[in-house]
Amino acid sequence: MDERTLKSWLKELRTQRISDRELINRLKDLPFRDLGFAKVDNHRALRCGLAEVIFCEGKTPDRVVKIAKEILRTGSNLLATRATADLFERVRAVDPAAAWHEDARCITVEKKKPTPLRGTLLIVTGGTSDMPVAEEARVTAETMGARVKTLHDVGVAGIHRLLSHRKTLEAADVLVVAAGMEGALASVVGGLVRRPVIAVPTSVGYGASFGGLAALLAMLNSCAAGVTVVNIDNGFGAGRAAALALGLKS
Amino acid sequence: MDERTLKSWLKELRTQRISDRELINRLKDLPFRDLGFAKVDNHRALRCGLAEVIFCEGKTPDRVVKIAKEILRTGSNLLATRATADLFERVRAVDPAAAWHEDARCITVEKKKPTPLRGTLLIVTGGTSDMPVAEEARVTAETMGARVKTLHDVGVAGIHRLLSHRKTLEAADVLVVAAGMEGALASVVGGLVRRPVIAVPTSVGYGASFGGLAALLAMLNSCAAGVTVVNIDNGFGAGRAAALALGLKS
Amino acid sequence: MDERTLKSWLKELRTQRISDRELINRLKDLPFRDLGFAKVDNHRALRCGLAEVIFCEGKTPDRVVKIAKEILRTGSNLLATRATADLFERVRAVDPAAAWHEDARCITVEKKKPTPLRGTLLIVTGGTSDMPVAEEARVTAETMGARVKTLHDVGVAGIHRLLSHRKTLEAADVLVVAAGMEGALASVVGGLVRRPVIAVPTSVGYGASFGGLAALLAMLNSCAAGVTVVNIDNGFGAGRAAALALGLKS
Amino acid sequence: MDERTLKSWLKELRTQRISDRELINRLKDLPFRDLGFAKVDNHRALRCGLAEVIFCEGKTPDRVVKIAKEILRTGSNLLATRATADLFERVRAVDPAAAWHEDARCITVEKKKPTPLRGTLLIVTGGTSDMPVAEEARVTAETMGARVKTLHDVGVAGIHRLLSHRKTLEAADVLVVAAGMEGALASVVGGLVRRPVIAVPTSVGYGASFGGLAALLAMLNSCAAGVTVVNIDNGFGAGRAAALALGLKS
Amino acid sequence: MDERTLKSWLKELRTQRISDRELINRLKDLPFRDLGFAKVDNHRALRCGLAEVIFCEGKTPDRVVKIAKEILRTGSNLLATRATADLFERVRAVDPAAAWHEDARCITVEKKKPTPLRGTLLIVTGGTSDMPVAEEARVTAETMGARVKTLHDVGVAGIHRLLSHRKTLEAADVLVVAAGMEGALASVVGGLVRRPVIAVPTSVGYGASFGGLAALLAMLNSCAAGVTVVNIDNGFGAGRAAALALGLKS
Amino acid sequence: MDERTLKSWLKELRTQRISDRELINRLKDLPFRDLGFAKVDNHRALRCGLAEVIFCEGKTPDRVVKIAKEILRTGSNLLATRATADLFERVRAVDPAAAWHEDARCITVEKKKPTPLRGTLLIVTGGTSDMPVAEEARVTAETMGARVKTLHDVGVAGIHRLLSHRKTLEAADVLVVAAGMEGALASVVGGLVRRPVIAVPTSVGYGASFGGLAALLAMLNSCAAGVTVVNIDNGFGAGRAAALALGLKS
Amino acid sequence: MDERTLKSWLKELRTQRISDRELINRLKDLPFRDLGFAKVDNHRALRCGLAEVIFCEGKTPDRVVKIAKEILRTGSNLLATRATADLFERVRAVDPAAAWHEDARCITVEKKKPTPLRGTLLIVTGGTSDMPVAEEARVTAETMGARVKTLHDVGVAGIHRLLSHRKTLEAADVLVVAAGMEGALASVVGGLVRRPVIAVPTSVGYGASFGGLAALLAMLNSCAAGVTVVNIDNGFGAGRAAALALGLKS
Amino acid sequence: MDERTLKSWLKELRTQRISDRELINRLKDLPFRDLGFAKVDNHRALRCGLAEVIFCEGKTPDRVVKIAKEILRTGSNLLATRATADLFERVRAVDPAAAWHEDARCITVEKKKPTPLRGTLLIVTGGTSDMPVAEEARVTAETMGARVKTLHDVGVAGIHRLLSHRKTLEAADVLVVAAGMEGALASVVGGLVRRPVIAVPTSVGYGASFGGLAALLAMLNSCAAGVTVVNIDNGFGAGRAAALALGLKS
Repeated sequence: MDERTLKSWLKELRTQRISDRELINRLKDLPFRDLGFAKVDNHRALRCGLAEVIFCEGKTPDRVVKIAKEILRTGSNLLATRATADLFERVRAVDPAAAWHEDARCITVEKKKPTPLRGTLLIVTGGTSDMPVAEEARVTAETMGARVKTLHDVGVAGIHRLLSHRKTLEAADVLVVAAGMEGALASVVGGLVRRPVIAVPTSVGYGASFGGLAALLAMLNSCAAGVTVVNIDNGFGAGRAAALALGLKS
Repeated sequence: MDERTLKSWLKELRTQRISDRELINRLKDLPFRDLGFAKVDNHRALRCGLAEVIFCEGKTPDRVVKIAKEILRTGSNLLATRATADLFERVRAVDPAAAWHEDARCITVEKKKPTPLRGTLLIVTGGTSDMPVAEEARVTAETMGARVKTLHDVGVAGIHRLLSHRKTLEAADVLVVAAGMEGALASVVGGLVRRPVIAVPTSVGYGASFGGLAALLAMLNSCAAGVTVVNIDNGFGAGRAAALALGLKS
Repeated sequence: MDERTLKSWLKELRTQRISDRELINRLKDLPFRDLGFAKVDNHRALRCGLAEVIFCEGKTPDRVVKIAKEILRTGSNLLATRATADLFERVRAVDPAAAWHEDARCITVEKKKPTPLRGTLLIVTGGTSDMPVAEEARVTAETMGARVKTLHDVGVAGIHRLLSHRKTLEAADVLVVAAGMEGALASVVGGLVRRPVIAVPTSVGYGASFGGLAALLAMLNSCAAGVTVVNIDNGFGAGRAAALALGLKS
Repeated sequence: MDERTLKSWLKELRTQRISDRELINRLKDLPFRDLGFAKVDNHRALRCGLAEVIFCEGKTPDRVVKIAKEILRTGSNLLATRATADLFERVRAVDPAAAWHEDARCITVEKKKPTPLRGTLLIVTGGTSDMPVAEEARVTAETMGARVKTLHDVGVAGIHRLLSHRKTLEAADVLVVAAGMEGALASVVGGLVRRPVIAVPTSVGYGASFGGLAALLAMLNSCAAGVTVVNIDNGFGAGRAAALALGLKS
Repeated sequence: MDERTLKSWLKELRTQRISDRELINRLKDLPFRDLGFAKVDNHRALRCGLAEVIFCEGKTPDRVVKIAKEILRTGSNLLATRATADLFERVRAVDPAAAWHEDARCITVEKKKPTPLRGTLLIVTGGTSDMPVAEEARVTAETMGARVKTLHDVGVAGIHRLLSHRKTLEAADVLVVAAGMEGALASVVGGLVRRPVIAVPTSVGYGASFGGLAALLAMLNSCAAGVTVVNIDNGFGAGRAAALALGLKS
Repeated sequence: MDERTLKSWLKELRTQRISDRELINRLKDLPFRDLGFAKVDNHRALRCGLAEVIFCEGKTPDRVVKIAKEILRTGSNLLATRATADLFERVRAVDPAAAWHEDARCITVEKKKPTPLRGTLLIVTGGTSDMPVAEEARVTAETMGARVKTLHDVGVAGIHRLLSHRKTLEAADVLVVAAGMEGALASVVGGLVRRPVIAVPTSVGYGASFGGLAALLAMLNSCAAGVTVVNIDNGFGAGRAAALALGLKS
Repeated sequence: MDERTLKSWLKELRTQRISDRELINRLKDLPFRDLGFAKVDNHRALRCGLAEVIFCEGKTPDRVVKIAKEILRTGSNLLATRATADLFERVRAVDPAAAWHEDARCITVEKKKPTPLRGTLLIVTGGTSDMPVAEEARVTAETMGARVKTLHDVGVAGIHRLLSHRKTLEAADVLVVAAGMEGALASVVGGLVRRPVIAVPTSVGYGASFGGLAALLAMLNSCAAGVTVVNIDNGFGAGRAAALALGLKS
Repeated sequence: MDERTLKSWLKELRTQRISDRELINRLKDLPFRDLGFAKVDNHRALRCGLAEVIFCEGKTPDRVVKIAKEILRTGSNLLATRATADLFERVRAVDPAAAWHEDARCITVEKKKPTPLRGTLLIVTGGTSDMPVAEEARVTAETMGARVKTLHDVGVAGIHRLLSHRKTLEAADVLVVAAGMEGALASVVGGLVRRPVIAVPTSVGYGASFGGLAALLAMLNSCAAGVTVVNIDNGFGAGRAAALALGLKS
């Protein structure tokens, strides 16, 4: 509910078209339902370019399409993560503006340009296998208006690859570091910059990587203070957190 | 090595006081040793008010004092975490300006005011037992120039306590949420604000909390996208990450 | 064995149709076999509408059908959980009254109405992906005579969705909360009501959710005292526990 | 905020003592702050005899005493769990009515009798070492008005000890089962009764009991459907959940 | 090497058909290679009816068949565990005497009757889903000459089912208890008999059973002292251990 | 209840001193209460020399002494494990026949000689640090009448130490193998003998031994089929299981 | 950058074709980018015969082929691990010299013979199922110039199989031990030789082997000091470490 | 047993001083007992300067001293790890040549100089808290004749500290890297050198370091192939493995 509605109600009261009781009833659940926090969310979404998001994994294609339709009907941008090419085809049938980001496994529909965020997000990966997670972060941040650069395959086993891009690292306002195996890249990057570093452990690895647990623990124990961590393979969360941080510049 | 030195070398070359070979040798290890990255770190510390930090746990008092002396001799601010009252007495004997933050278990010595950061950091705790971690975050962020507010004991079991401070939450530029047990507070806060939320799981709890693991996993799996996480009880890391984020406003 | 049988035996003894020895032999294993605790279970089943249950996972279709036949032959209601559509077809071939609950993955055959339980069970979910578990709980509780309401997709990241239904929450006599990821919903709900809350962690999530472990630990560490927990994805157990609690009202 | 206040506001509006804007402002934060949910909690506490609770572990004695004073000042009953004999002495100095429950490690102060709950709670333990947890459950439930019976040392290694009390088990309205080691008691009890069974794994054991994890997992996997579980050693939570269930009878 | 061979060598030495050097060389590796511990194993196998065993999982069908051929060529009995029906067909093509044990997933070829062991092994299961493991134990023990009885589906949730067979339990000389979920059956059986009880946790269960870990931990923590445990789903190991124990009677 | 009692009851019935109803009531709970299974347990204890056992850890000295008094009053032998020298003094004050086994941390009081078991138990340890566990096994088995031999410090890193005692190993009827660290000794011993091998992982080790978990897992995964395992440091359980196995020889 | 380039720059400076400023700029990022550490790596690769390596798992065939092409274009040897037969066909289409190592799941292309390393690497396996890992180690070490011998199927359950090859063990300069299940082989081998032993836990096993965790922990806790460990199933890492050790002989 | 003895036996046989039976008996246990593998071990110890080692933790002082006496009586060098200052005093009372290494917590007694190994071992640490582990490695390697250098406090958060010592790193023949927290140092070092790198995770850290598990997993998953790992805090094992590798140069 916006203030306009509330004002009209008060007018109804004053002109005695509704009783005290009626207004009380209307107001009772208002802060949640009638003021509609979903609406507030919509406002915020419009304001900062934040698309509505569908996490597709574990949802039937029918349900994903149905939710997508509802989001698109409100004129909102759409971001669907952990999607498949098949799902993309079905969403494109609903809205031809749908775009498919293969590496990121994301579908986006941009109904209106997000307000551009200031500054730059740099996404760094340890190896090419971390790219799907990095791309998910990139697509997510871009739907929120972020300008994103990437620096791939600079894992610590060949530290010089990373160090030769020190200027790129230092020029970034926020950094996302996606790495699997031992996840050491986050610590090294964290030690090279004075900006927020968001670490995403990836499930790249085998054996005692335990599905990304090794990288996760390493990143949580980073000796480079100031590094923060999101869930294993959670490119979406990293991208979102990074864009929120960039939002501080605006 | 600064440019001045390099110029003088080139001059020596041109004037044939040194040979090609000699210059090549001088240049070889220069980017690391002679440009002195430790120096760069010092510069950065001065510039953004970042104190040098000693993690006291597992160090003998003698070593802590010795390191503290060296830091103080360079005129740097000092932050010693996981300290004890005894240790504080010993540091105060070295420098009477030393301050003891009991709840935070931190010693600070402020030789020069850190450059104030813009915006506000809000530290939120689930219960009073989370306070030591929250205080460590506060002291850390303040040594970096952050303005910090706190909101204690607003755990989700009494959700209204939290919701009644929604304005405070929304007014913050960056938030640190410290919570133990099930760590749900991070998700609820993360769903209420559009700013970076840094979650610190605390080891408050027993049994299947497994020393903070329950809260850690919960925070990593937060359904409120954009929440990032630091190590269990790592108030220092949270405070530092928060101050780095605030630094984006400057 | 019921008392009637026992009386007739004693009569046989008194009238010397059987010897002491014979009666002793008859009595020896009686409390278990002849009094037939399975029978007692049957009585209880009839009395409180508790259907016999088959956990289908890991059983061959042939065995499930065979067990189902035996249960149905005794006139008992049937509940088969973790079933498949194929299995349903095979059970329907045995008994056309069989019903298929797709989301719940349950087959039911209702031979007689369960005695209705007093009060209401409210099943709350964090997201639509938790629905299969919630539905299993619903179907289970209904076979025991419970009246069930549901409240879907009220996860804590948008706390207002939940709070706008506070009256529904408070009106329930028993609540089941099914949530994956960080499982925080149980704590928030547990803090809003003064009735038994049974939490079901679901395996919805990825990475450090470790198949539902994160939600499980969170729920076990709930700061909302009084919340009890069942196994990951155990909608059946939650539904049964809830119906047992409702049974206290009768 | 109650309706009376709201009505007076509307009157102010109609009589033009306040503007639309003023009323809108007043309404904005109302559901949380002005209705005062803390107050509601107080009311509920009084109504159902629920004492305010302090979890003492990890709090300094000074803080515990300070919180206790505040609770007692409001005339509320007090329950302090995980306390020590020393702490008890300090609380008794504040209020001579304080009682010390040694096995339960609880302090209680009963300012007013809790409204008695109907029915009976039976607390069952596997061994005498589980008694502290069982006693914490008993004290907690009693502060909420529950009538509690106990059945100690009936572990499954001597199943007959348990079976010889079958009538006691069947007579209970709600059961709490506290057991360490393999925690099998919960399953056996759960199979003998048709009432809610709340299982508390205890940390009794060594080696691969991993501090109660073995019992916890066993109870979560109980083949006796309907058993629900609380955290390891969480006698308080079990007692509270049991009393909430008994509350359904009232 | 048997003594006969050694004697003939010594004779060769004395009769100077071989030199000291030659005999020293022959003796050098003798305790391992020439005495052939594999041969010793063969002797033992013949003596106690122990078939040679192939663990098929993770071996290519070709390799399994090749190993089987070699074993059969020596006239030894064959036991192949974790086999498939396809594999059985291939082994039967090699030796028509091959038998397929479907539930146990075992292939056996009996070239000579194993020497019967004295006493009886009783295999007890918690539910029908534990049968494959129990059957593997049965087939294994039978290839070693054990007489095996079974008692299926006597899980502790319906303790009377078990207790009604107390005589059967007490009559057994060795017991194998296979149970999944919470694995409580081992403790209850262990408390009812004074004979060796070998517990096999099975991977039957879901969620927090963690692939049999819950049952494994429960059995290791059994309050019924004297219960010993084998690996999850290790019916083979349980059968073998049981037959070794029965061997003490001979 | 014995048959004599039952006969007298039937006589009472026939002579009409009691009614059908009275007899039915008497019979109802009889198999458990009136036959007195605790009594049966006592009988069994006397018959096979099995002492009553107190696990002292986590029990107050007062309770241990009280339980010990009760056991001794019935003329039973006493075994108290995980005891201390202080506790021993207190038990000796009760009964001067009490013996203290320092390495085993056990107190025993032998009121009557246990019936000797046939055969020999051999207890093998990897290192001298495993001795407390081995000694607990020895004392336990001896209280049950077993003849025990020991073979200490034959860990696999010096395999020849073990192999040089092959005859001792092969001469044993049952073997207990106690080893920490990687627990490999159980596999090697299990491969050398054709008798039951009971493996006890000990908590000897550090780091990734995780309190004995490494040895436990190793023993459960032993490639020497037939090895069974008890809980970490559970010398008592191993001794008891070994004596039960020896009992098969009698 | 090589010295020649640097010399030419200095010449430009002396001849005033470039300014001080220009040279300073050129030198600034030189140690990483212009000296080209990747080039250094190439040199090292040529010098010690170390092939470039592609870890194929989790890479699309297209990407693997593309990387392979680039490596081959530089004239480098190629090693592709965790490959498939299909992938091999595609690489062979690129370079007919490609070889397929089926057991090792490796593709190699040898463009030039690696410089032979002195000494011998012995790879020892516990069972035939460990062969893929052992073969990966062999192929890897051979691409680095190592001479490799193998000793298969000498698991500790039949310790004599291993001991009969003691000379082979002692003759090796470096040993790789690949074993699954309880991984005890590493300790026994480590106790028999005075050379570096590199242990590779394999995921061979089931149940409580937890995908190789049991063997991993066992090897880390080896009582044979001097044994070092690589990741589960990491034959590649073991082979490389072994070849690096052999490199010390040169 | 050496060949001389065997020859004399054969002579006795030929000259009929002993019978076939007698010789057979003598030969039977010979490879283990009479060839005396302990003796061989002694020889090896003397030859390569390997001191006998006592792991003191968990042994009573009396036992440590007793073992030390026996070792010293044979003229062997002594190394006692995980010792205390008190223990040192007691050993010095036995042999005044005893030396105390405080940081390493080691006692050494050097009765004869170990044969010097060729090459150099470099021990690298992430932080000063890793020093005890590094020192244990140093002392261990030195008792085996290794020349050891150290490079402390070069953790990856300030990567330049490490890179400025690249020549030192490259000059080493074998490297030991001791690091706690996220253990990333091993990967970075492993990527900079072409020599064996032995990684020792240390328990330095807190929270999700889980006693060194994070560093252990990171090191096992190192993207720098060729890094091998020892147990957490196992400086002794690392030092020994390093010295064994250096032994390849001799």
